[in-house]
Amino acid sequence: MLKPAWTKEEFEQQLRAKGAYYHIHHPFHKRMNAGHCSKEEIQGWVANRLYYQMAIPVKDAAILANCEDQEVRRTWIQRLIDHDGREGDTSLGGIEAWLRLGEAVGLNRDELLNEFHILPGVKFAVNAYVNFARRASWQEAACSSLTEMFAPEIHQSRLDTWPTHYTWINQEGFTYFQMRLGQARRDVEHGLQITLDHFVTRNQQERALNILQFKIDILWSIADAICFAYEYGRKPFDGIANQQVCHTGRF
Amino acid sequence: MLKPAWTKEEFEQQLRAKGAYYHIHHPFHKRMNAGHCSKEEIQGWVANRLYYQMAIPVKDAAILANCEDQEVRRTWIQRLIDHDGREGDTSLGGIEAWLRLGEAVGLNRDELLNEFHILPGVKFAVNAYVNFARRASWQEAACSSLTEMFAPEIHQSRLDTWPTHYTWINQEGFTYFQMRLGQARRDVEHGLQITLDHFVTRNQQERALNILQFKIDILWSIADAICFAYEYGRKPFDGIANQQVCHTGRF
Repeated sequence: MLKPAWTKEEFEQQLRAKGAYYHIHHPFHKRMNAGHCSKEEIQGWVANRLYYQMAIPVKDAAILANCEDQEVRRTWIQRLIDHDGREGDTSLGGIEAWLRLGEAVGLNRDELLNEFHILPGVKFAVNAYVNFARRASWQEAACSSLTEMFAPEIHQSRLDTWPTHYTWINQEGFTYFQMRLGQARRDVEHGLQITLDHFVTRNQQERALNILQFKIDILWSIADAICFAYEYGRKPFDGIANQQVCHTGRF
Repeated sequence: MLKPAWTKEEFEQQLRAKGAYYHIHHPFHKRMNAGHCSKEEIQGWVANRLYYQMAIPVKDAAILANCEDQEVRRTWIQRLIDHDGREGDTSLGGIEAWLRLGEAVGLNRDELLNEFHILPGVKFAVNAYVNFARRASWQEAACSSLTEMFAPEIHQSRLDTWPTHYTWINQEGFTYFQMRLGQARRDVEHGLQITLDHFVTRNQQERALNILQFKIDILWSIADAICFAYEYGRKPFDGIANQQVCHTGRF
């Protein structure tokens, strides 16, 4: 027998319940916000997370490229501008803000941009998000962005705890977390509206939950890869070869 | 100053030197072939590796779909047939052989095929391989398959050690390793010829090495994800929620 569709309120509640699996609950993030991470662990997280930040506008461009609805494009394009900034505009783009966070934790811009620290497991997880946006419909890709529902809480918890726990970090580095508080709340309203309107049968609604879980898996997998490399000391190929392993190239 | 191109012999030697990073050297694979894995670890590896096996013919179909060279397609198509088998042909396909290995280690066909055990980190790594084959040229995708140069050694080491260490595994399950010994050797000749002919300048040859490293990173990342989940007991979301997490759907 076909299950009845959820009302929009019930469906939204189901989507929000996925917050139980958001990476705010990952042991590595809990350690980070409890002040237990070493400088090297913080640096590893910031350097690797840059790869995600760099992928966001590419992901959003893929959504635009799949979207035939002008009204949606006119709204969605703000996300690219938020992250990339614009020529001649003095407001800080998200990628630039993240690079400043990288500098605030003691990394230099060159090693951040040459992807020297990026772990393969992080690349594969992030690229899964970009590739999904390329191949899915724009409504499905919008749905996958709904982890933003849970983002303000994790940004706020960093703002609340890092200045006390990690006094060695230059506080100007925290601009990214600050600016995303408002941006994420605005973005989530739009993404949620698209999702609630597009997935209407129970099967579609359950598919939306799976898509959101897929995105949650990506964030969790990024945390796993960083945790394994930095907390457990298990960087790829450690100890098995003398030469520097090259992971460059966007494949 | 431009570096001079390597001769084909030197280039082949550089490609073969990448074997230093092949997952045969991953601590989890070393434990496995030394007989130190538990039944649950072996089952976890076999169940997760099925996701890779299932992706291989899709990856090869993507290569065919990008290849305008009939002669290459006439040869390459054998790889799909090797893994999928053919209607009415009694010879065992690779996927079917792997499913039998799954049964030999005590898993049932349903839980293997519903992807219940598949870790997100494994999915993202495997899908990176498929997505690369979709977007790269067929020559670059052929190059990425060259980890086959190192595969006969790892299959042989399983055949040499598993029957002694894991006497609880039904030996009929080892057919996959046995049949790949010959198939991988034949495939590598073809993939290597394509690579040596296509990448001719030093820049191109170095790109080929990066592509092969990318594939090596995929295999290493798969081993990392399995190792973290099964050896370190760090399956995603363990302990943070009561309900079964659904990772289904191919995104």
